[in-house]
Amino acid sequence: MTRPYNFSAGPAAIPEEVLQQAAAEMLDWRGSGMSVMEMSHRGKEFISIYERAEADLRELLAVPANYRILFMQGGGLAENAIVPLNLSRGGTADFVVTGSWSQKSVKEARRYCSANVAASSEADGFHSIPNPASWKLSPGASYLHLCSNETIHGVEFQQLPDLKALGSDAPLVIDFSSHVASRPVDWSRVGLAFGGAQKNLGPAGLTLVVVREDLLGHALPACPSAFDYKVVAEHESMFNTPPTWGIYIAGLTFQWIKRQTEGGLQGVAALEARNSAKARLLYDAIDSSQLYVNPVDPACRSRMNVPFLLRDESRNEAFLAGAKARGLLQLKGHKSVGGMRASIYNAMPMAGVQALVDYLHDFEKTQA
Amino acid sequence: MTRPYNFSAGPAAIPEEVLQQAAAEMLDWRGSGMSVMEMSHRGKEFISIYERAEADLRELLAVPANYRILFMQGGGLAENAIVPLNLSRGGTADFVVTGSWSQKSVKEARRYCSANVAASSEADGFHSIPNPASWKLSPGASYLHLCSNETIHGVEFQQLPDLKALGSDAPLVIDFSSHVASRPVDWSRVGLAFGGAQKNLGPAGLTLVVVREDLLGHALPACPSAFDYKVVAEHESMFNTPPTWGIYIAGLTFQWIKRQTEGGLQGVAALEARNSAKARLLYDAIDSSQLYVNPVDPACRSRMNVPFLLRDESRNEAFLAGAKARGLLQLKGHKSVGGMRASIYNAMPMAGVQALVDYLHDFEKTQA
Repeated sequence: MTRPYNFSAGPAAIPEEVLQQAAAEMLDWRGSGMSVMEMSHRGKEFISIYERAEADLRELLAVPANYRILFMQGGGLAENAIVPLNLSRGGTADFVVTGSWSQKSVKEARRYCSANVAASSEADGFHSIPNPASWKLSPGASYLHLCSNETIHGVEFQQLPDLKALGSDAPLVIDFSSHVASRPVDWSRVGLAFGGAQKNLGPAGLTLVVVREDLLGHALPACPSAFDYKVVAEHESMFNTPPTWGIYIAGLTFQWIKRQTEGGLQGVAALEARNSAKARLLYDAIDSSQLYVNPVDPACRSRMNVPFLLRDESRNEAFLAGAKARGLLQLKGHKSVGGMRASIYNAMPMAGVQALVDYLHDFEKTQA
Repeated sequence: MTRPYNFSAGPAAIPEEVLQQAAAEMLDWRGSGMSVMEMSHRGKEFISIYERAEADLRELLAVPANYRILFMQGGGLAENAIVPLNLSRGGTADFVVTGSWSQKSVKEARRYCSANVAASSEADGFHSIPNPASWKLSPGASYLHLCSNETIHGVEFQQLPDLKALGSDAPLVIDFSSHVASRPVDWSRVGLAFGGAQKNLGPAGLTLVVVREDLLGHALPACPSAFDYKVVAEHESMFNTPPTWGIYIAGLTFQWIKRQTEGGLQGVAALEARNSAKARLLYDAIDSSQLYVNPVDPACRSRMNVPFLLRDESRNEAFLAGAKARGLLQLKGHKSVGGMRASIYNAMPMAGVQALVDYLHDFEKTQA
């Protein structure tokens, strides 16, 4: 059986090898007589799954020793509250707004601190990233928040800002939900990174937080214990029962990432090379067509989420129906921007992007 | 292959039929070409899974139309904060403390409101439930919280208190994590019920909340949007991406419950009859032995979690090793109380309890 190609923005495609292994181990994980879902989170079987997942992720993302890896619950939207509850100290936090997700983050943070929009690309429809030299940073800000890949608007920071060089001591907080593990992270510029798992790591319901140790221990009194990073870190992500199945699937995905090779590269570096090539192929097809258009500044186009419009929007339904008939699924764009969106996360092979590009050509021809 | 019997307190055994179906559908859910983990939560495939799960649970638990069913994240421990954030209005909440879980609830609630311990069985080691007539209720309390089944201490409310008859207008909040769907709920006495899924409903990472509509809309300003019951209800549990896999497995479990029959009964009523018989068999074996002891008042012994001690504690390791050799897993008691604990949730068949009882007898004989 050939599986269709699934371009969902999240929950999203999972590597087929991961699904096959999960199916094979469903009733009996490695002779334990239990499904992973049935294991006590404090038993030696699950602890071994957890420890391997943590170690593999640390290796893959080159997370320094003074950063803690936390497996939490609630997704990116909950983190929009959990981050200011933990880091704001009730003071001022800066935000760079480059799309829907960072916009939501500002709104939620206002419950807990003074949120200053240091820069925004709203005026140009979120099609660009404001030059860091123009950001209006608050003196003494508790942190600066940005969404390093905007899933809906398809805008990605190709490199993270160096806040120190901009004269700020604030730690940088990044929401890397939709491009985590698709490229390396420059931890020298990052204080905290968070992301929902459901794009590149595993199933919905697991949230990854990577946090520098000096940022632990400053939670506001209103912070629920289960979301206090220090409490979670002290309990090795087991203050409350962790989402064990999500950690298991993420762990299988980390092992899959470690096995990936591309042009002599391995792991995340291999995926970065592959993701760049996939994105180039798709953007070239869009840019060279008369029918499709992507409005984002080429300097900050996302390698993961490629929104595009049909110049003749009356053809949208026909486009989607034809795609589905070819086994190209979930290409409908987010309702807030319309049109189409192809999410080409780690699990999407080059062959899937090629199949989409072939379809773009063929569909355009039928419109002539 | 015969699977071992898994007595874990949670995450816990899942019906084998559910695991088999999940394995079979892993790569292609009903011709969709996708794993459930890969589906957009807003797509028609997942919406159909969600709607069926919600409807089946409403039917199984006979949830009245003026109660909302919410699928959330964070487990019981997070709800210890989320409940007072939503319901306390910053006033006073009453607590009946009958074990570790209600004790934790009081402590966490103190972040958000004045928490009054209306009654506690701590003085007798959490082996009983204080008579409701003796509870010291606060006038004008926002709610009264109790844990209707204490997973660690093995204490269960055999019937819920009628707060109105006690002269209180406060809504009753129950933490029913570890006996949800094992017996009917008298909703006329309950304002809100919450529970982690990982005992009787599915995998860890899914939290069930059933809340009467008039209790929505009173969240404190510090309540994260993702945990504001009103926001969650308005978005049909999709304000943030829900734990889709957990909802799917819970949905398969609800279907399994609907198929259960026992002595002419069906669904939860059938499980209640079976659970009563299972618990009776196990408690009788403990009470009639010279080696094992359960210290809980027979009037409030849990049908789900049966803690017991060996009178000769030096035999604990030998007991556990012998159990494992017979395929009786995860019988070690919680570290805070020691000894053993057999959790005999819905998914544990009578044959599993019989196998444990046989082992109790055989092990005791070897000690003579």
